[in-house]
Amino acid sequence: MHYGGIEAGGTKFVCAVGDENGNIIERIQFPTLTPEETIPKVIEFFQKHEIRALGVGSFGPIDINVKSDTYGYITSTPKTAWTNYPFLQALQKELNIPIGFNTDVNVAALGEVTLGAAKGMENCLYITVGTGIGAGAVVQGNLLQGFSHPEMGHILVRRHEEDSYTGKCPYHKDCLEGLAAGPAIEERWGKKGIELENNSKVWEMEAYYIAQALMQYILVLSPEKIILGGGVMKQQQVFPLIRENVASFINGYVELPPLEEYIVPPSLGDNAGITGALILAKQSEQ
Amino acid sequence: MHYGGIEAGGTKFVCAVGDENGNIIERIQFPTLTPEETIPKVIEFFQKHEIRALGVGSFGPIDINVKSDTYGYITSTPKTAWTNYPFLQALQKELNIPIGFNTDVNVAALGEVTLGAAKGMENCLYITVGTGIGAGAVVQGNLLQGFSHPEMGHILVRRHEEDSYTGKCPYHKDCLEGLAAGPAIEERWGKKGIELENNSKVWEMEAYYIAQALMQYILVLSPEKIILGGGVMKQQQVFPLIRENVASFINGYVELPPLEEYIVPPSLGDNAGITGALILAKQSEQ
Repeated sequence: MHYGGIEAGGTKFVCAVGDENGNIIERIQFPTLTPEETIPKVIEFFQKHEIRALGVGSFGPIDINVKSDTYGYITSTPKTAWTNYPFLQALQKELNIPIGFNTDVNVAALGEVTLGAAKGMENCLYITVGTGIGAGAVVQGNLLQGFSHPEMGHILVRRHEEDSYTGKCPYHKDCLEGLAAGPAIEERWGKKGIELENNSKVWEMEAYYIAQALMQYILVLSPEKIILGGGVMKQQQVFPLIRENVASFINGYVELPPLEEYIVPPSLGDNAGITGALILAKQSEQ
Repeated sequence: MHYGGIEAGGTKFVCAVGDENGNIIERIQFPTLTPEETIPKVIEFFQKHEIRALGVGSFGPIDINVKSDTYGYITSTPKTAWTNYPFLQALQKELNIPIGFNTDVNVAALGEVTLGAAKGMENCLYITVGTGIGAGAVVQGNLLQGFSHPEMGHILVRRHEEDSYTGKCPYHKDCLEGLAAGPAIEERWGKKGIELENNSKVWEMEAYYIAQALMQYILVLSPEKIILGGGVMKQQQVFPLIRENVASFINGYVELPPLEEYIVPPSLGDNAGITGALILAKQSEQ
């Protein structure tokens, strides 16, 4: 009994076939070009395998409202080749199987809550800090969704007192993503995060911003586990700093689990998304 | 077929009996004294009526985790007579019927989503701005809950550039509640909000803080409707200012419904909570 999963990112597509328990049997990946170039490769891969259903975790923004006329579309993305692209429909047309469709980060949260760091829990938050900042969540067992999917990466934060960098977000300038995503780190410090590993000021500031965001998410969603992934979070030295800042901001107002167990990297590593996509595939059959 | 509802506030208790549609048939209210004084009055009222089930919306913090040993308790409230009080258990012992138990604000959200401003929707956010600031939400039809209930009133906000007031929150000083709840308005301006109706600076600042909070809630929860109740929100002149600020903060990043339909007062008025409690009672039978 095989299932298919797609982790559709802005720079690369990962496609995998797995079993009903979310174990990956075969995977391929290729760069995200235009839909005309990329989608046929996706179709070709899955047509070689007998899969019962497919799960898609996509970059966004996307329309995940099943009542909407544009359900399954990638909507207003800055990647113009994909703007208003009927992603789900393109897959359905060729594959003709049940397809679950959600954001890359919601699907990663699903992976981690099913098989990863939040296994056995009903609620978890998954945040990726990389080229952008995005977050997804499982709330009482469901992928978080309102009129649309969360856009938590753009919440407002207070400036670090030593930070004079303007911010990089085209909409909000100095929102969380504008101050703390990879490109902001690079522009502020003149080097990529990976080259700044030993500059403690960089990570102190980064932790200050991320911890503020976590405070807001905790007070709104009360997640049972917070998982921080993405390229910037490969800098493991930032985790203890984030935990210290969260403790200081919350200041005992809500009771939290021990923070070293509460704020953690993904235990599925870079497979959180694609594993979640396989689980979403299975759920889409029901 | 009658149901009972309790809106247990820090200053007063409202008890009501209603029908299966949430219509109130009879209601009483009395001040919140100690449990020994207050709970017998509650029991006496409901024992006079034949009710099938009871719904409770309580001030907090409370334990709403059904797996917890202290489920149904009021926990670390500053009202010391109620600290670690087994509220649900005290009611169950005397009434012996199904009882639903949740926060006052979650229950108000349930009232508004079932019969009020968000009727027919799956997601709504209810915020009360009064002595404190609290918020509850219905997400995909369920009352929002993680390891605990939301504590959204304490999120961090950026200071208004003309605001030099320290903030009143004992935990965070200048969090949202510390800067924008009724007591903060009174301490900053030297008068109660109700006496400041014509001071536009007061409401400009108030709107600035509340709109920031709404931006954060929107980006996390994506509610279909935002309902603002509580004493401070009786100042209707603040609604247009909040909407202007929200539009400016979001800056087109997410598509929202027309803001005059999106950010609104409770259409159940002061009955949102008690109506929600009656609906929770009915749900607790299932």
